[in-house]
Amino acid sequence: MHDIRLVGFDGDDTLWRSEDYYRAAEKQYEEIIGRYIDLHDAGTLRHLLEVERRNLQVFGYGVKGMTLSMIEAAIELTDGRIAARDLQQVVEIGRATLQHPVELIDGVREAVSAIAAELPVVLITKGDLFHQEAKIASSGLADLFPRIEIVSEKDPPTYARVLAEFGIDAAQFVMVGNSLRSDIEPVVRLGGWGVHVPYALTWAHEAEHGLAEAHPRVLSVESAAQLPPAVRGIVEAARNGG
Amino acid sequence: MHDIRLVGFDGDDTLWRSEDYYRAAEKQYEEIIGRYIDLHDAGTLRHLLEVERRNLQVFGYGVKGMTLSMIEAAIELTDGRIAARDLQQVVEIGRATLQHPVELIDGVREAVSAIAAELPVVLITKGDLFHQEAKIASSGLADLFPRIEIVSEKDPPTYARVLAEFGIDAAQFVMVGNSLRSDIEPVVRLGGWGVHVPYALTWAHEAEHGLAEAHPRVLSVESAAQLPPAVRGIVEAARNGG
Repeated sequence: MHDIRLVGFDGDDTLWRSEDYYRAAEKQYEEIIGRYIDLHDAGTLRHLLEVERRNLQVFGYGVKGMTLSMIEAAIELTDGRIAARDLQQVVEIGRATLQHPVELIDGVREAVSAIAAELPVVLITKGDLFHQEAKIASSGLADLFPRIEIVSEKDPPTYARVLAEFGIDAAQFVMVGNSLRSDIEPVVRLGGWGVHVPYALTWAHEAEHGLAEAHPRVLSVESAAQLPPAVRGIVEAARNGG
Repeated sequence: MHDIRLVGFDGDDTLWRSEDYYRAAEKQYEEIIGRYIDLHDAGTLRHLLEVERRNLQVFGYGVKGMTLSMIEAAIELTDGRIAARDLQQVVEIGRATLQHPVELIDGVREAVSAIAAELPVVLITKGDLFHQEAKIASSGLADLFPRIEIVSEKDPPTYARVLAEFGIDAAQFVMVGNSLRSDIEPVVRLGGWGVHVPYALTWAHEAEHGLAEAHPRVLSVESAAQLPPAVRGIVEAARNGG
């Protein structure tokens, strides 16, 4: 029997669109690579994903790391034949992705407002500090979140640290997000609750997770409008010893 | 009359060496550029600083932004003649800079320990979240800092936000750091105190500041060993209504 005392929200693809911009960036990257090699045989984006994943432990998440990986991948894939001007275009892809407009997902402002009227909320977002801060500022949602945590990885130790700072147990915490891997699984592993709200697009890296279907402490919803009743349902379930 | 209630420490070039690695990176960058143009006429590093500064508002601080700026600057300066293999070497400069060993500045561990035995301390460091976290982990100092704040810019609003989270006034806060621009001036503007401990090297961007010499709430020291007495001196001065 626990009282829910904090609701966490993910940012990218939970509050605002993000993956669309990464996909657009990949498409532009492919166009540049297509000037040098036959895209049909190349597995260009699979190769890029490999380069990104091997660089994750040095570059971390975010657009700048993606851009550096694109540059490296482009040089590899073209055997060093790519022209500097085309690599400058890859830098421009990164710059444009860092400056994309922040578009809220439908109904998010109302949903967060409704939940924040009943429970303390915190934004827990992953990736590049500078870019995430810029997106929070442009989102117009900063007033709803008295506390914002920008973290470099969303794993159980990170959530445990954030919860310790708030002085609450995982069993008193609900995380809302689009990624089973980053938002739901680590919180559930700690003993917390999750509301999964899938986004239309998921980065291949985020699609891998080890969570059983239909976990008793995870609800799935289809839109932001369903978030307040889902959180209320978890508050009830936790109170009843769930 | 105030009691000092919190001491903040900067990371790069205050606790551990950093600028040395940036300088080494710039030297390697110059060597690559020197394959294409006469370095004597080019103002290579002045040009790089210009590119970095115009990119700061999109890339933020840190090694990944520096690396992207180096790529852009190299393409500009060589009029697009630079070979992709040489640009890959610029990416490698970035990767190496992200992975440099963390070397503590002499006496820092003892100084922080002594101060932490008397007052709460916090590490307030600027730059890339992922890289800063990696450096804190390698530094062996994480146990001394129960709270760590990694921020994207060190200006008065950022310090005001951090101090608000701790629930203390600027007049109760001392910041220790090597950069007058980032560590001392913004804190003093808010009404707080500073201990300036210069490092042998300063990035041109950090060298610009608007602080008068000999400010009454700023002490300057020459080594980490002098930090504990300097902080004690400020505690006394604040208590006496300084």
